[in-house]
Amino acid sequence: MQAEIITIGDELLIGQTIDTNSTWMGEQLNSIGIRVHRATSIADDRKEILNILHEALLRSELILVTGGLGPTKDDITKKTLCEFFETDLIMHQPSVERITALFKDKGLPILEMNLLQAEVPRSCKVLNNSRGTASGMWFEKNGKVLVFMPGVPYEMMGIMEEEVLPEVQSFFKRPEIVHHTILTQGVGETFLAEQIKDWEDSLSSEELKLAYLPSPGMVKLRLSAYGGGEKNALEEKIFRKKKELEGLIGEHIFGYDKETLASVVGKLLLERNATLCVAESCTGGFVSHLITCTPGSSDYFVGGVIAYTNSIKDHQLGVSSALLDSEGAVNDETARQMAAGARDRLNTSYAISTTGIAGPSGGTKENPVGTVWIGISGPNRTFAYRFQFGRNRERNILIASHTALNLLRKEIIGQNV
Amino acid sequence: MQAEIITIGDELLIGQTIDTNSTWMGEQLNSIGIRVHRATSIADDRKEILNILHEALLRSELILVTGGLGPTKDDITKKTLCEFFETDLIMHQPSVERITALFKDKGLPILEMNLLQAEVPRSCKVLNNSRGTASGMWFEKNGKVLVFMPGVPYEMMGIMEEEVLPEVQSFFKRPEIVHHTILTQGVGETFLAEQIKDWEDSLSSEELKLAYLPSPGMVKLRLSAYGGGEKNALEEKIFRKKKELEGLIGEHIFGYDKETLASVVGKLLLERNATLCVAESCTGGFVSHLITCTPGSSDYFVGGVIAYTNSIKDHQLGVSSALLDSEGAVNDETARQMAAGARDRLNTSYAISTTGIAGPSGGTKENPVGTVWIGISGPNRTFAYRFQFGRNRERNILIASHTALNLLRKEIIGQNV
Repeated sequence: MQAEIITIGDELLIGQTIDTNSTWMGEQLNSIGIRVHRATSIADDRKEILNILHEALLRSELILVTGGLGPTKDDITKKTLCEFFETDLIMHQPSVERITALFKDKGLPILEMNLLQAEVPRSCKVLNNSRGTASGMWFEKNGKVLVFMPGVPYEMMGIMEEEVLPEVQSFFKRPEIVHHTILTQGVGETFLAEQIKDWEDSLSSEELKLAYLPSPGMVKLRLSAYGGGEKNALEEKIFRKKKELEGLIGEHIFGYDKETLASVVGKLLLERNATLCVAESCTGGFVSHLITCTPGSSDYFVGGVIAYTNSIKDHQLGVSSALLDSEGAVNDETARQMAAGARDRLNTSYAISTTGIAGPSGGTKENPVGTVWIGISGPNRTFAYRFQFGRNRERNILIASHTALNLLRKEIIGQNV
Repeated sequence: MQAEIITIGDELLIGQTIDTNSTWMGEQLNSIGIRVHRATSIADDRKEILNILHEALLRSELILVTGGLGPTKDDITKKTLCEFFETDLIMHQPSVERITALFKDKGLPILEMNLLQAEVPRSCKVLNNSRGTASGMWFEKNGKVLVFMPGVPYEMMGIMEEEVLPEVQSFFKRPEIVHHTILTQGVGETFLAEQIKDWEDSLSSEELKLAYLPSPGMVKLRLSAYGGGEKNALEEKIFRKKKELEGLIGEHIFGYDKETLASVVGKLLLERNATLCVAESCTGGFVSHLITCTPGSSDYFVGGVIAYTNSIKDHQLGVSSALLDSEGAVNDETARQMAAGARDRLNTSYAISTTGIAGPSGGTKENPVGTVWIGISGPNRTFAYRFQFGRNRERNILIASHTALNLLRKEIIGQNV
């Protein structure tokens, strides 16, 4: 069975927007055992849309399309769909009610243009959009399925998870597939690959597949069992290979599947009835942001200080002004005093501190751009480590923040660092 | 003239790698006046490659292809190209010398596999790769151009800049394209569309195009002039329509093109020699993160307090504990005391505060999930506004943070809110 993805939008073709929808949809389809053989971005243009739909129907059984469904005039997709499927637009009453309720909830006036979003081609099955106004649309033609969704990633993801993936799984008979994702931080893809070479070679004889999914500072390893067997047998097989993997690279693993570093740290803190605060300089609030993205984080996270300037490091955290004057802020001692000061003043079990040069400028010979000291203060000790990241500011902030959370995680569980 | 982009690689279709090459190449072509009408990702597969090359030649004059030229995969790809162009592989002596020198430079032994990278189809013009082993290849067929480059972004970018873009500019006659992007915050796409309806209708007669690009809490309006005219004439036309637009929705516009809310606020503060701090509760550090993503933000941003719990609001910011006990933290008075307290204690010109219910739980009848108070304290006054966002935690954090920055921007420039 062949699937393909089509993303519609001029912004994808002129370098304005990176097409992340295709990547995400590709991963989702892959996770239910469906292979995507082509992904195409086209302009908001009637002829382009008609052409690619005709082509796609010749070569694919499942066609997922995003974009072009907004309420404004650049969105010509719905009219084009009526032309393609030889149908007309009708007002979809449940969508009218949903959109009306959405605006009422937000206390906003509803415009005629908003209600036009409830219009759908007569011949489609409407897919509920729980996160926005434009509904998804499911068409069947010659035993093939075409799905249309809005291009806003958050809305598309909702429709995919709640509507499309379950429908697709029941429409197409799929072989069982089991995935398990192992999350690592702090080591590169190539390094991991070298360490698990023999183990990886052993997978094919067991009909298992491994994918490396790298993101800044992290590598996710997705282990998949496709197969003829029963679901239980596949799960047992994956469990056994995962145990072997843990024996090889256990020290780099921080979690599994949908966990995040922040959620893992939160769980560890809750189990110990412990609390956390932060003292951030170069990460500028991003460690705190990662922590507070986890719902319920207020049960263990009290807050912290963004100590961007030296005077805040001094006044709010009690870092020695003599030290800051003589040595500057990017050193072992400052990182330790920041963490210890925050832990003391905010009265928590643990504190994380960061101080460094995010870039792009500000580097010195001693502390080039990308130098970051991360400090941890806890019930047992206060310490700091130096890291050398790259030259890109946003990437440095991201990697330093994840590294800080992982350092805290290791300290809490007593893993040597 | 129609251009299209093809990226080859399994990793692009299973969610492993986001295709940034297409975006970058699209931007480059656009900047020299070439419109990309389609971008396709396909698997490393002989049949897929042959199919798309045949298709692309029917609809496009310029076809840029990346990927599939690595030392392990190039056997298949280059042989497939020979099949397509009805030619055979020859050893390209200048490439042999370049590759040999490259390995010598790095002090690495050269393998036979590396030298095979110097083989190219006989009928192509070789494009020099100054950053890696795999050369680029330029083919002409029926007056059309097909270019093949390695998929490594850094290498592809070098070949594009040094070889492809100059060659393309001399091969094709191109019309000019001028874009201008207008950035708005705080109003929905539909609302904007309603306000600028007549103006938008007037665009087509001037051969201008408008695109709405929404992201959480923001809408970017991209105005494009394609055309017969000279670049100056196009720019003049866009400038005039932009002025009209500013007359219609000026109050919602915060910036242009590559600006961000944080960079605009930073510029305003610098111009006034003013400083800023934050007191964040429900946004949990994200306002601070947005501010510190701008390089040089330490010139006006001193830092702040993440006051996630009431005790931090009280101890670090001086919010009245009696108030917190009797009214809780989600109200006008708390937001104002947080902002005023931060401004006072951190000694800045301005302060931003946020307090609310990010969700998914914690809502009450009075303050449902999505309720956020945003406070601003400045030289002239301290005030707070209530906002009602949605039900998704991460989205609420994002929108509240952008809204807070925009509220500050309006206060600095004295725009009534």
